[in-house]
Amino acid sequence: MIYIARLELENLCSSIFQKLGIPQEEADDSAKILVAADARGIKSHGVQRMKRYADGIKANLIKGNVQPTVLRKTPVSLVLDAGGGMGLSLSVKAMKQVVAMAKEHGIGVCSIRNSNHFGIAGYYTEIAAKEDMIGVALTNTAALGVPTFAKKAMFGTNPIAFAAPGHDGRRFSLDMATTTTTRGVIEMYEKTGRKIPPGLAVDIHGLPAEDPARLLDDMLYQRGGGLLPLGAEQNPSRGYKGYGLAVMVDILTALCSGGAFGEAVHDSAITSARVCHFFMATRIDIFRDPEDFKTDMDAMLAALASLPPSEGAERVYYAGLREQEAEKSSDENGVPLPETTWESLKAIAEELGLRV
Amino acid sequence: MIYIARLELENLCSSIFQKLGIPQEEADDSAKILVAADARGIKSHGVQRMKRYADGIKANLIKGNVQPTVLRKTPVSLVLDAGGGMGLSLSVKAMKQVVAMAKEHGIGVCSIRNSNHFGIAGYYTEIAAKEDMIGVALTNTAALGVPTFAKKAMFGTNPIAFAAPGHDGRRFSLDMATTTTTRGVIEMYEKTGRKIPPGLAVDIHGLPAEDPARLLDDMLYQRGGGLLPLGAEQNPSRGYKGYGLAVMVDILTALCSGGAFGEAVHDSAITSARVCHFFMATRIDIFRDPEDFKTDMDAMLAALASLPPSEGAERVYYAGLREQEAEKSSDENGVPLPETTWESLKAIAEELGLRV
Repeated sequence: MIYIARLELENLCSSIFQKLGIPQEEADDSAKILVAADARGIKSHGVQRMKRYADGIKANLIKGNVQPTVLRKTPVSLVLDAGGGMGLSLSVKAMKQVVAMAKEHGIGVCSIRNSNHFGIAGYYTEIAAKEDMIGVALTNTAALGVPTFAKKAMFGTNPIAFAAPGHDGRRFSLDMATTTTTRGVIEMYEKTGRKIPPGLAVDIHGLPAEDPARLLDDMLYQRGGGLLPLGAEQNPSRGYKGYGLAVMVDILTALCSGGAFGEAVHDSAITSARVCHFFMATRIDIFRDPEDFKTDMDAMLAALASLPPSEGAERVYYAGLREQEAEKSSDENGVPLPETTWESLKAIAEELGLRV
Repeated sequence: MIYIARLELENLCSSIFQKLGIPQEEADDSAKILVAADARGIKSHGVQRMKRYADGIKANLIKGNVQPTVLRKTPVSLVLDAGGGMGLSLSVKAMKQVVAMAKEHGIGVCSIRNSNHFGIAGYYTEIAAKEDMIGVALTNTAALGVPTFAKKAMFGTNPIAFAAPGHDGRRFSLDMATTTTTRGVIEMYEKTGRKIPPGLAVDIHGLPAEDPARLLDDMLYQRGGGLLPLGAEQNPSRGYKGYGLAVMVDILTALCSGGAFGEAVHDSAITSARVCHFFMATRIDIFRDPEDFKTDMDAMLAALASLPPSEGAERVYYAGLREQEAEKSSDENGVPLPETTWESLKAIAEELGLRV
């Protein structure tokens, strides 16, 4: 593991984006989101994805300097066509608009179509939480998830993020895929030459998938098979909960914006699929005095984090605590990157003529 | 199984509520919700719960004729103290107010404290769906769910309901507990003298619970142990998703309304705990032409329901389809009730001097 100062890593990533033709503000915002993932320990969504973003930008599938088209607007809502722009920086702007609507009217929502991969959903909800608001961020993704009792992927890993603040930067921050696992985990089984354990994925017949290489190929070319929905780990019939949550995400992101949903969302060999997002912010003081709310949040979070662990476990967490602790450590000691990730990031930079 | 005409069953339940002192309108609304559960095949939330409601009303823990106190109000939001009123009828009124706010401003939300058991959450979301809106309904419940790595219940089964309409009464309607299972299922293991299978619940040490009678007793007296969160069926560390969703529900229902949350929500031997609810409705036309939205919904739902099933499975559903089909059959052939449920309902009625 190599530790890189956060600002240095952000600057490098922004320089790469700018060399690829992304305007500075978009490049800076996008770099911050990628580095935030690594700083929080969410490596799957960090700078190791830079090659995919770079390939997408080179292929003109991810475009800089796009002004999203406003499709519909009310004082509390906004619907955008992102025109294939940078999903990362564009989502920061969208969340800020949602927060501005909530400041004025109590609530704001935004549904966006035709966007690109937006990194960690939890980055956006925390923009709201820092403003004494409750934040929600959703995105659909390439179809990798198989409905209960089916054998074909019909929805993405469709994550749900939700954040609410306590005092002094304390916060509850959930960011979860609605499938049992993600493609990144299947890729890990492939890299390490291991079989996929039961309960995570099914093959083209809807039976437990064991061979990660075959599953990844079948998923990429949409031949069938895919990831099981949350809850199906032990009993396939229980997967209806994750399946239902994933469809809920498709409805709010894609059906509300008129974008691509279900199996129509798919990756190309080059880069990620055109995806849809949904953001929401609600001012806490439309419900209650924010101080009282945050006092209750503090009490709840403290009660959870101080619970005696079960036999064999070390500690009880609440959503976001582990990531907040990792981020604090990254800010003090540098952002930890596996050497291979750092080397490949440097290679991308050097190829573009940047000095690292 | 006995089949009772829906209207007859609704009238009987309403008469029971009225005999117990609940005003007619509240009694009628409440009866409709209980019977809807049975009509849809959700027996755990149907008229078999009448004894618990009746006991709660007799003990003055559930009160008729309560006017909820408005704690805070904006054009898009409402916070109520339900004053221990009838959770069922009161939630219908709250959802109608939310729908009225959404009609005028696009969105409406309502958080309610100090209420009682509100039956099936999916009943309320469908009030919104029938008005060309997207509906959300949440409730916290007595603490029965154990956080990941802990050994003590700190949140309820905290269900999430979400509904969105297609054309001609078609709709996606999710209504799911955020725990792997519910207390009703544990009670079934007790009644049939079977052990609890692994992955559903833990004992006071945080180890797999096998003895349903002991677990039910430990849960009732809050000695420790409880249900595992969604996702923990196979691997305890994956339960963080259900755990996170359950806490999200506590935040929107209880922390937003200033009500009881976490382990402070508990049943008495007589009836259910004082609980908190959250309702939301969003007009579809703030996003898109509702006709276009519903056309996409129709296409998505048809694609899902016509998927070829996996080997060994019979059919692929989407959330709410099974319940809609059951309801249609109940409307045609009568609402199916187990004989024991029908007998105990008649006994309650006769004890109150009603002729059945």
